[in-house]
Amino acid sequence: MGGGVTIVEPANFDGCTLVEGCFVGSFVEIQAGAVICARTRVQSHAFICELVTIGADCFVSHGAMFINDSFAGGGPARGDRSRWGHTRIGDRVSIGTNATIMPVTICDDVVVGAGAVVTKDISEPGFYVGNPARLMKKEK
Amino acid sequence: MGGGVTIVEPANFDGCTLVEGCFVGSFVEIQAGAVICARTRVQSHAFICELVTIGADCFVSHGAMFINDSFAGGGPARGDRSRWGHTRIGDRVSIGTNATIMPVTICDDVVVGAGAVVTKDISEPGFYVGNPARLMKKEK
Amino acid sequence: MGGGVTIVEPANFDGCTLVEGCFVGSFVEIQAGAVICARTRVQSHAFICELVTIGADCFVSHGAMFINDSFAGGGPARGDRSRWGHTRIGDRVSIGTNATIMPVTICDDVVVGAGAVVTKDISEPGFYVGNPARLMKKEK
Repeated sequence: MGGGVTIVEPANFDGCTLVEGCFVGSFVEIQAGAVICARTRVQSHAFICELVTIGADCFVSHGAMFINDSFAGGGPARGDRSRWGHTRIGDRVSIGTNATIMPVTICDDVVVGAGAVVTKDISEPGFYVGNPARLMKKEK
Repeated sequence: MGGGVTIVEPANFDGCTLVEGCFVGSFVEIQAGAVICARTRVQSHAFICELVTIGADCFVSHGAMFINDSFAGGGPARGDRSRWGHTRIGDRVSIGTNATIMPVTICDDVVVGAGAVVTKDISEPGFYVGNPARLMKKEK
Repeated sequence: MGGGVTIVEPANFDGCTLVEGCFVGSFVEIQAGAVICARTRVQSHAFICELVTIGADCFVSHGAMFINDSFAGGGPARGDRSRWGHTRIGDRVSIGTNATIMPVTICDDVVVGAGAVVTKDISEPGFYVGNPARLMKKEK
C-alpha cells in the first residue's frame, strides 16, 4: 500500500496492491492480486476481483464491478483458475456507476457510461454506453 | 434527522437530512447535503450522493444509485463542484433495483424499472424502463 | 444453517435457510424466509429477498439482486404481502454480476448474463442476456 491512500470503512481487502494517492470508498471489496495504480479512486459499493489491473488516474464509480469468470463453459469455473480471464485497464479511464466489466483490455482515455456492460476489448478512446457497451462518441 | 427514522447498520452517513418516518437499509451510503423527505424508504446497497433531493413517500430500491458527476468533460470532475449536477425527485416516485439515476429532475408519481438508467429529465408520470430509460406506459 | 457454511462479514441475515456447503460473501443481505440450497455461492454485494428459493449448485454473482415487489400497482406494496411474488430458481443456475431478477421461475441449467434484467419465467436451459433478458444461445 502506497503513501496517501485513503480507505473508508467498512471495506474488505485481501492482498491487493494500492499505489500512492488511491481512494477506496465504503462497502468496497478488492480481491487478492488486484492492482490499483496511483491516484485512482474506487467509489462505494465497487467490486474488483483477482486478475484485474487498473491504471493511474482512473475513476471506478459506485457499484461498478469486475468479472474474471465469464461462465465460458456454461457455468462458474468453481476454482479452476485456468478458466479465469485477465482485465487490464489503462490510465485515465472512468467506469460509470453500476457498470460491469467482463475480462477485457481497455486502452487509456476511455469513459464507460453508467450501467454499461463491457463485453469486448476497447482499443480506441471514447465514450462507451449500453448493454453490451458500444462506442457512442469518439471524444470523451 | 426526524422522528421515527429507522436505520439498519452498517450504513454510512455524512451530514444528510432524513425527515420523519424514513427507513434506511443496510450497506447504504448517503452523502452530505442529500435530503430524503418523509416516509421515504432507502433499501439496502443504495447510494445517494450530494446534491440529491428525494421527495416524500418515495421508494429507492436495492442497489439503486445516484450520480452527480456525469463525466461531462470526458472524465470525473475531481472535486470541481461547478461540474456537478443536481437531482430532484418528486413525491411518490419508485426507483427500481439496480437502477441508476443521472443528474436529472423527475416529477411526482413516476416508476423507474429495475436496472434502468435514467439519463434525461422525466416530466410525465408513468413507468420508465431500459438503458437509456424510456416511457413504457403512462399508467404506473 | 447446514454444515460447512462459510460467511464473510459484514453480512446481514434475518432468518433465512442456508443448506450445507453454501458460501456467502461480504456485504450480502439475505432476508427472512429465503432458502439457499446446497453448495450454492452468493457473492459479495448480492441481495436476496423474502420469497426467494435458490436451488443447489447455483452461483449468485456480485451485486446480483432479487425482487419480490414488482410495483405492479404503480408503486411499492408497502407491506401488503399479497402483492409480493415468489421467485424459484432451479439447480445449477448462474446469475451474472449486477443482474436483477424479478419475481419469476427459472428452470435448471440456466446462465443469466452480467447486467441482465430477468422479467419473465425461463423454462428452457440456455444463456440469457440483456434488459429485458432474452435467450442468446441454447447451449450454456
